[in-house]
Amino acid sequence: MDLEGTPALHGCRMPAEWEPHSQTWMGWPERPDNWRDNAEHAQRVFAKVASAISKFEYVTVCASASQWANARSQLPQNVRVIEMSMNDSWFRDTGPTFVVRDSNACLGNNEWKVAAVDWNFNSWGGIEDGCYNDWSLDLLVARKILEIERIPRFPHSVILEGGSIHVDGEGTCLTTEECLLNKNRNPHLTKEQIEDQLKAYLGVKKIIWLPRGLYGDDDTNGHIDNMCCFVKPGVVLLSWTEDESDSQYERSVEAFSVLYNATDAKGRKLEIIKLHVPGPLYMTEEEAAGVVQDGEAKPRLPGTRLAASYVNFYIANKAIITPQFGDQKWDDEAVRVLSLAFPAHEVVRIEGAREIVLGGGNIHCITQQQPALL
Amino acid sequence: MDLEGTPALHGCRMPAEWEPHSQTWMGWPERPDNWRDNAEHAQRVFAKVASAISKFEYVTVCASASQWANARSQLPQNVRVIEMSMNDSWFRDTGPTFVVRDSNACLGNNEWKVAAVDWNFNSWGGIEDGCYNDWSLDLLVARKILEIERIPRFPHSVILEGGSIHVDGEGTCLTTEECLLNKNRNPHLTKEQIEDQLKAYLGVKKIIWLPRGLYGDDDTNGHIDNMCCFVKPGVVLLSWTEDESDSQYERSVEAFSVLYNATDAKGRKLEIIKLHVPGPLYMTEEEAAGVVQDGEAKPRLPGTRLAASYVNFYIANKAIITPQFGDQKWDDEAVRVLSLAFPAHEVVRIEGAREIVLGGGNIHCITQQQPALL
Repeated sequence: MDLEGTPALHGCRMPAEWEPHSQTWMGWPERPDNWRDNAEHAQRVFAKVASAISKFEYVTVCASASQWANARSQLPQNVRVIEMSMNDSWFRDTGPTFVVRDSNACLGNNEWKVAAVDWNFNSWGGIEDGCYNDWSLDLLVARKILEIERIPRFPHSVILEGGSIHVDGEGTCLTTEECLLNKNRNPHLTKEQIEDQLKAYLGVKKIIWLPRGLYGDDDTNGHIDNMCCFVKPGVVLLSWTEDESDSQYERSVEAFSVLYNATDAKGRKLEIIKLHVPGPLYMTEEEAAGVVQDGEAKPRLPGTRLAASYVNFYIANKAIITPQFGDQKWDDEAVRVLSLAFPAHEVVRIEGAREIVLGGGNIHCITQQQPALL
Repeated sequence: MDLEGTPALHGCRMPAEWEPHSQTWMGWPERPDNWRDNAEHAQRVFAKVASAISKFEYVTVCASASQWANARSQLPQNVRVIEMSMNDSWFRDTGPTFVVRDSNACLGNNEWKVAAVDWNFNSWGGIEDGCYNDWSLDLLVARKILEIERIPRFPHSVILEGGSIHVDGEGTCLTTEECLLNKNRNPHLTKEQIEDQLKAYLGVKKIIWLPRGLYGDDDTNGHIDNMCCFVKPGVVLLSWTEDESDSQYERSVEAFSVLYNATDAKGRKLEIIKLHVPGPLYMTEEEAAGVVQDGEAKPRLPGTRLAASYVNFYIANKAIITPQFGDQKWDDEAVRVLSLAFPAHEVVRIEGAREIVLGGGNIHCITQQQPALL
């Protein structure tokens, strides 16, 4: 069912990721021009992520008709597998952005408590600058998910991916100028107009703009979810490096400065927790050779700096699902920092998450939380 | 989740169709070698059926990736449309057979009240005798439906279509020898062994065997749901004709005789209500010309007697969804008889149901009820 008006007009807000979920949605990787060796390694890691989350909440994995049986066989029985076609499997970006209507904050009919925004999508930059040329199936993913759950939908013409926003659930949105003000997304909108859209569709009051995302995160044009996220209202985690010779350094320092001087929607100063990046890591010859370079999708070239960051974790009910890159020192440090930041959550390591970053993202990018009905 | 053992061992029974439903499942017709003019007429009638049922209960229509948007646009908003691949759209036969576990009749864990049998399927007769050569997608339909609903599944190796059985919910199953004892289904099983399977999987005690189904119903080898059905325990509707020159006549008389001499699981004699068939109706040149005869599916030839019967209606919550064939006299008579037989239900006419019979079945064949949790 499509709703009229905006979520804010209906008294809705996007909840923070740590608020209770009813389930997690994921896609299933398949395209051989993005995922090496016919996605076999990526599928194993996606299955590992789904399986890990399923110990804490329901998980639904969507897979194409030709992949359904394969996905079903690789996933544990308590993970639901539903047939769905897609151009690629980044449900953070193509899935719905769920919003909730808290009691006593309603306009209109009272029958629903959860709805979702179905943003427009252009493959992270359109024909010229995007990751692949045909995103017609991706455009239907959010709608199909909402249909399955019979959840009402706010369709929207603004191009936005879920990975480009983070909220604290109390009125603050964190994003990057590199992505949201990029000419390849909504060139007809000014910064002020985009702020108005975020306020209307996420139910936020204040937007904190970092200039840039993670170094090397060119596929997404610097999504916030690889760079910085909320731990709770007033506290953020920031991708960091102590290595001044790393191109990441100036981006982290720049972001730190913005965050240090910012206040959130409630007027709070932010506590900033530094989370050191791994590596630097680069795509190997062997990894690149496994990708079918057919001209349909962005080429994957050996030697490319991988946009690897521990900030790209996922908050499940009572668990932090954390990428591990085989870089012992920083892997362990990330777990230490996250365990301190989330003392009430179990930090779960996903070994082999490098495989997801080879395709252009990480655990947060391949998951999408559906809030619980409270 | 797959269950061990049989439904009967778990204290389950298949409820009668008039027991409360939580929803109705339907497929979406597409294949041009069975549905004329690229299924456009059939799609309109399927949409009419879904729309009619949706006034009384939830409806989910499953459509392939390439048809999803088309199905979505033709169906009302309150009908849920989910992507699902299939070889054809007869969910009575390829969908799950739901069973319920009444309270105080349980073995094993107590968490579920509804489960379903996922029968084996061979396209109504296998490579030699079936309707098409590839039914690999049909084989997954029941499992995919159950996955969506997180309903536990009894997988079963016996070949059986839902249209070949009717139950009264009180221990009696009605079926035909023409279909269930056909060598193209389960040639290794004796009649007694098939009875044992029905008892174990439908939770019934007594099987009433009609020798044959409707004249001309060669696609299904005489499914019971075109010939005879229960109205309530102890009362059946039987496809009938007064025309002794019609080949249907001897089949109806033969069935009448069996039913007249039968008793049900509770030892009751049966009341038999005659429901006159339309026509006879035959496929026209124009209709046959619209079907792509590619050798993959059974040919559709002009002049073929259509297996048209008013018994192929669907019992929704408080409604009887009834095929109408444009044969005014018998259309009206069917509505009269059904209104008397189901005084607490609204009889809803589906005009243009001829289009479904051109593809080989009717309203009952394209619907599958999911029982309500009581």
